[in-house]
Amino acid sequence: MARIVLKFGGTSVGDIDRIKNVARKVKVEVDAGHQVAVVVSAMSGVTNKLVEYCAGISPLHDAREYDAVVASGEQVTSGLTALALQELGITARSWQGWQIPIRTDDVHAKARIGTIETEELERRLSSGEVAVIAGFQGLSPNGRITTLGRGGSDTSAVALAAAIKADRCDIYTDVDGVYTTDPRIVSKARKLSKITYEEMLEMASLGAKVLQTRSVEMAMKHGVRVQVLSSFDKASGSDLPGTLVVDEDEIVEQELVSGIAYSRDEAKITLVGVADRPGVAAGLFGPLADASVNVDMIVQNVSEDGASTDITFTVSKGDLERARGVLEASKEELQYRRLLADSNVVKVSVIGVGMRSHAGVAQRMFKTLADKGINIQVISTSEIKVSVLIAEEYTELALRALHTAYGLDAA
Amino acid sequence: MARIVLKFGGTSVGDIDRIKNVARKVKVEVDAGHQVAVVVSAMSGVTNKLVEYCAGISPLHDAREYDAVVASGEQVTSGLTALALQELGITARSWQGWQIPIRTDDVHAKARIGTIETEELERRLSSGEVAVIAGFQGLSPNGRITTLGRGGSDTSAVALAAAIKADRCDIYTDVDGVYTTDPRIVSKARKLSKITYEEMLEMASLGAKVLQTRSVEMAMKHGVRVQVLSSFDKASGSDLPGTLVVDEDEIVEQELVSGIAYSRDEAKITLVGVADRPGVAAGLFGPLADASVNVDMIVQNVSEDGASTDITFTVSKGDLERARGVLEASKEELQYRRLLADSNVVKVSVIGVGMRSHAGVAQRMFKTLADKGINIQVISTSEIKVSVLIAEEYTELALRALHTAYGLDAA
Repeated sequence: MARIVLKFGGTSVGDIDRIKNVARKVKVEVDAGHQVAVVVSAMSGVTNKLVEYCAGISPLHDAREYDAVVASGEQVTSGLTALALQELGITARSWQGWQIPIRTDDVHAKARIGTIETEELERRLSSGEVAVIAGFQGLSPNGRITTLGRGGSDTSAVALAAAIKADRCDIYTDVDGVYTTDPRIVSKARKLSKITYEEMLEMASLGAKVLQTRSVEMAMKHGVRVQVLSSFDKASGSDLPGTLVVDEDEIVEQELVSGIAYSRDEAKITLVGVADRPGVAAGLFGPLADASVNVDMIVQNVSEDGASTDITFTVSKGDLERARGVLEASKEELQYRRLLADSNVVKVSVIGVGMRSHAGVAQRMFKTLADKGINIQVISTSEIKVSVLIAEEYTELALRALHTAYGLDAA
Repeated sequence: MARIVLKFGGTSVGDIDRIKNVARKVKVEVDAGHQVAVVVSAMSGVTNKLVEYCAGISPLHDAREYDAVVASGEQVTSGLTALALQELGITARSWQGWQIPIRTDDVHAKARIGTIETEELERRLSSGEVAVIAGFQGLSPNGRITTLGRGGSDTSAVALAAAIKADRCDIYTDVDGVYTTDPRIVSKARKLSKITYEEMLEMASLGAKVLQTRSVEMAMKHGVRVQVLSSFDKASGSDLPGTLVVDEDEIVEQELVSGIAYSRDEAKITLVGVADRPGVAAGLFGPLADASVNVDMIVQNVSEDGASTDITFTVSKGDLERARGVLEASKEELQYRRLLADSNVVKVSVIGVGMRSHAGVAQRMFKTLADKGINIQVISTSEIKVSVLIAEEYTELALRALHTAYGLDAA
């Protein structure tokens, strides 16, 4: 007997037939004797429509009302899923965020979960009742509905799993697990049976949108074993058909590199001939931060003449024009000669906790790319990741070459 | 300065533009210095879709889950309407049933309102804040969402108006008031500026679907002045462009008859040759009640032979087959000779509190119909109403003739 949280995303509950399918998947776990809590998202498309309604009335809307409106999507799915379970003879009831309650702060539209009162919930789970919980939402200190930000149902599920000390949190989605790289590009990509929290975090932050970053952070912090799996797969979740996201200790033989990730949402800006004096970086990145531009990779070259230098950094494609505007407005102050911008770039990263204890990982990456004639524009590294910025046209070539070079190809 | 409750139905909040229109109507009252609470229904079509979802999963669904699902429609509108008001510079916030709370019993899907905690609400109204309240819903004693049955938002509005001692409850709908009869049939129908609760109740129970019957009963009980008016009308509600539903005392010169109503949702059943002995009516109507068949008009003829009699009664068209089944099953026990059923009938009623003090109202009705050659099949009367059952094909003819006969025609 285990206690499991099952989370189903918008595609998995996209229509009545799919909700019935979800109920059948839950029944398998109930029949196996497990205690089951289910967390559901809104039916796919519903949240977008509700967000559109809000935007149609007021572009800068009150986030408290936005939350009341958009949280309704999950309310509907929770009730329908409870009905579908009852139809299969399972005792089940829906729970809204405010009913449990899932207490959050009052930062509407991106609230953070504080405490979850689980006493009644756990009593009912122990008695065999299935709890169907509306994801994505909670209750603010002054009694209003809050939402956790897009993709927040993952966070609801992991937070709940931590609170009720679940043995596992299964995140059902439309992919069947986490792959060594994007299988649409690299046909030899393999599904990983296990991956560490740290690696998953790097994958998630690079745009491999399998799990919301915050949910992975939370799982890591509370040691929640998370499984990513497909709701369209026939296997029972307890047979572990997906990818388990777990602590490093749980992975017996760690590969050097677990996966190759990439992000096309990158733009590169180079300021040529910036005065090389103390405070110039602060003078440059301060105004960008004020304009809410997130800067990722940063490289400052050693200056040739000791008087001026070049600074290159990346921002997301959507922030490029805003960044350019900010920098052109402060041209006088920053005293750079020219601003070069390029959005035809991609960030490719090799990720693996194994590289902590092994040298040569970065070197192998550089050599592999060089052998294919791919120029590296910017490099950044972390403890478990090496990222390079290259021209976007080389994306597929680079991914395939690196996948082979690190021994990740399927047999 | 008055305190007003404004209620907007599904058509009035049917899309974003209409919600903005609602906000403009509310603003007129706010600008005039009134304290305003707004009660909203779900956007038209939404509740039906949600009901369909529930039925698609489970024909005999758990009403508690049904309530969680369908109450979401009003939640969306309440948030959107608050946003639209804010966009016009008005301080406003949404309130869900559970937030106020509007306490109900636990009869899900048709809950009755118990108490409404208005302290915080009234404090905010007094400070100039507009409260936008999700209609149709409340909170059960054990913390679950309840709904009040179809059309329940009218009841929410009237109950709220009673609780906060509002000067008026304006029910915005897609008609501009209550008419002397159906203007689609009788072109000379006039809009009534005032009507009594009792008359409105008779109108409502006869299928003039302007106000939900329960909301009128509640208004009468608590003396809430209700106005029925159109949300597409340009006039301000405080200029009283619609029909006021009020106490008899408020109507200075009472007409003999206020309106002519009709209901096509009638079917007539006659049992021929029923044994004429004590207990036969109970033996007949008991099983019908057990099968949830509502019986309306009942006529029992004097028996010719002293041994058997004929009993005629009406049920709604939708109940006819069920009623027939019940009666055929108890044929042996009831010992009737034949069962005759006819659903080509219409019930026409003249309604007016004035008839209490005037004789001859019924007689004028019978004579008017006789003059047109219309046969009366069943008659029933109440203190302020005379109803007759006639063949459905005479509906229009009867309505026009009666409208003229009682002096209701527009000049």
